[in-house]
Amino acid sequence: MKVLVIGAAGMIGRKLCERLLQDGRVGNVDIFELVMADSVVGGLGADVAFAKNIVVDLASPDAPTALLASRPDLIFHLAAIVSGEAEQNFDKGYAVNLDGTRALFEAIRATENYRPRVVYTSSIAVFGAPYNGAIADDFFHTPLSSYGTQKAICELLLADYSRRGFLDGIGLRLPNICVRPGKPNAASSGFFSSIIREPLAGREAILPVADSVGQTHASPRATVEFLLHGATLDTEELGARRSVMMPSVPASIAEQIAALRRVAGDAVVSRIRHVPDANIGAMVAGWPARFDTQRALALGFRAEPDFDSIIRIHIEDDLGGNFVG
Amino acid sequence: MKVLVIGAAGMIGRKLCERLLQDGRVGNVDIFELVMADSVVGGLGADVAFAKNIVVDLASPDAPTALLASRPDLIFHLAAIVSGEAEQNFDKGYAVNLDGTRALFEAIRATENYRPRVVYTSSIAVFGAPYNGAIADDFFHTPLSSYGTQKAICELLLADYSRRGFLDGIGLRLPNICVRPGKPNAASSGFFSSIIREPLAGREAILPVADSVGQTHASPRATVEFLLHGATLDTEELGARRSVMMPSVPASIAEQIAALRRVAGDAVVSRIRHVPDANIGAMVAGWPARFDTQRALALGFRAEPDFDSIIRIHIEDDLGGNFVG
Repeated sequence: MKVLVIGAAGMIGRKLCERLLQDGRVGNVDIFELVMADSVVGGLGADVAFAKNIVVDLASPDAPTALLASRPDLIFHLAAIVSGEAEQNFDKGYAVNLDGTRALFEAIRATENYRPRVVYTSSIAVFGAPYNGAIADDFFHTPLSSYGTQKAICELLLADYSRRGFLDGIGLRLPNICVRPGKPNAASSGFFSSIIREPLAGREAILPVADSVGQTHASPRATVEFLLHGATLDTEELGARRSVMMPSVPASIAEQIAALRRVAGDAVVSRIRHVPDANIGAMVAGWPARFDTQRALALGFRAEPDFDSIIRIHIEDDLGGNFVG
Repeated sequence: MKVLVIGAAGMIGRKLCERLLQDGRVGNVDIFELVMADSVVGGLGADVAFAKNIVVDLASPDAPTALLASRPDLIFHLAAIVSGEAEQNFDKGYAVNLDGTRALFEAIRATENYRPRVVYTSSIAVFGAPYNGAIADDFFHTPLSSYGTQKAICELLLADYSRRGFLDGIGLRLPNICVRPGKPNAASSGFFSSIIREPLAGREAILPVADSVGQTHASPRATVEFLLHGATLDTEELGARRSVMMPSVPASIAEQIAALRRVAGDAVVSRIRHVPDANIGAMVAGWPARFDTQRALALGFRAEPDFDSIIRIHIEDDLGGNFVG
């Protein structure tokens, strides 16, 4: 099987590629080519014969040809301009998140006798307040950001191109990914991770919202599992609704902090400082935080059992088992 | 006020333009320019000083410049490749229904100090089975056609461009328009009108589905009122959800026929012949037929009280008060 990962240098992209390089297979099928594409130079898999890194700007007209050169059987499309940047730079967000994705789908359609599995990462940003209880998969899209609009449009294209038989798509609506390792990215939701990550590293973290704010989370490890399951499940089970809200762990900021206290102790928690930011607070108020994910569970997707596990996974996977107590 | 109607030569476009030419105003504001644009030559308003017809192919790169030349304050965008044709011709449907609309929105955005009201006609085709009771405005978009996908995407763009302040948009999801006068168009839903229109004209009509099939209808006259109300209402009342399902008259085919019998008699009804078509039957099964239109009603939109009224409006507006008994 030939596999293409678009957005391979992003946080999830790297973790997915590391897993694919290590396993050498997806489900029961061996990988004999792994193309890792990103707009920046990637360095993974230098010692793996089937691995290859390419640099591609998804907004460039040449991108689809470069990406599809070897006719990959399985495409993970994780590349995106993140929410904060897409809101600030309207043209760039649409060029990458919408036009780049559509050009890829069009190039797949134009290739004869070709119908790859496309695993597309969507987002809870496709939803927007007001909410009426837990959000199920049949809840209306009302994005309150350009990023969410672009993701919602690509979900629609993914479904139409799948229905027409041009590709075999599945969209995974990811919850907040927590704990993000490394430096913060430009996503407005970064503080959900930084209030865990920074104190564990011995650094102070700023909490810009009230601790009653709720969100729903999955670890990077669970997210890689979502992607691999999306690559192998029988898409007939999806029917016309090709996008699925992934399962997740709901937790308020207060519950996140309580879990941090249980896992890492009072000294770590004392490094969180509350500095309210009205802009972020207003943005967060429009984010959905409760989902009905029965459909994803029935399809075999699984998240962590609790937020404590999410913190422990971060310590295991990203901190080598240690933290600054 | 300057008014632009895109799709002025279509069935609803013509009726809207006739009304605008006759009234000379929208709400309380006088019209001092009415540009009627279509891909085919239009002939309305030859004797009206403020009226002008232009021929524009919405898919052409020059279209936005031609359409926006005089900076219209109010734009009715009714132009579309209809459902049947958009399904058969994938490229043409996307080029007109998606790219043409987006190029128009982009050109509006690129014009300085300009934020026109845009009244966009969307469709119940944005929804797709399975349904869970009456469909409210927060029900998820699952189009089962490329046409519905294109309409859903343009609703998302309309909302995002409105949210960003580039235009002041409202999307009207039209129910089945009934009774369509004149010749059938390429819409798959044509039989809902033809089983009324053809018998009233003394001709036989083919009914391709079972008479238990339900649909929900509004007259062309009510549709023109929807458009005019959409042009004048305070869009602040819409919040982030810029598209609204219009009110309508639910009726099964059997109820349509019973109304025809009441209004026009047995001889007219006897001209309907049932010739089942499995393809049309399968397509119709995915169409939504029950809506919760409380929101539209609260916003002041109104449909007919019953299907008898819809038939009488057709006889009054399109048949000069007469039919073949």
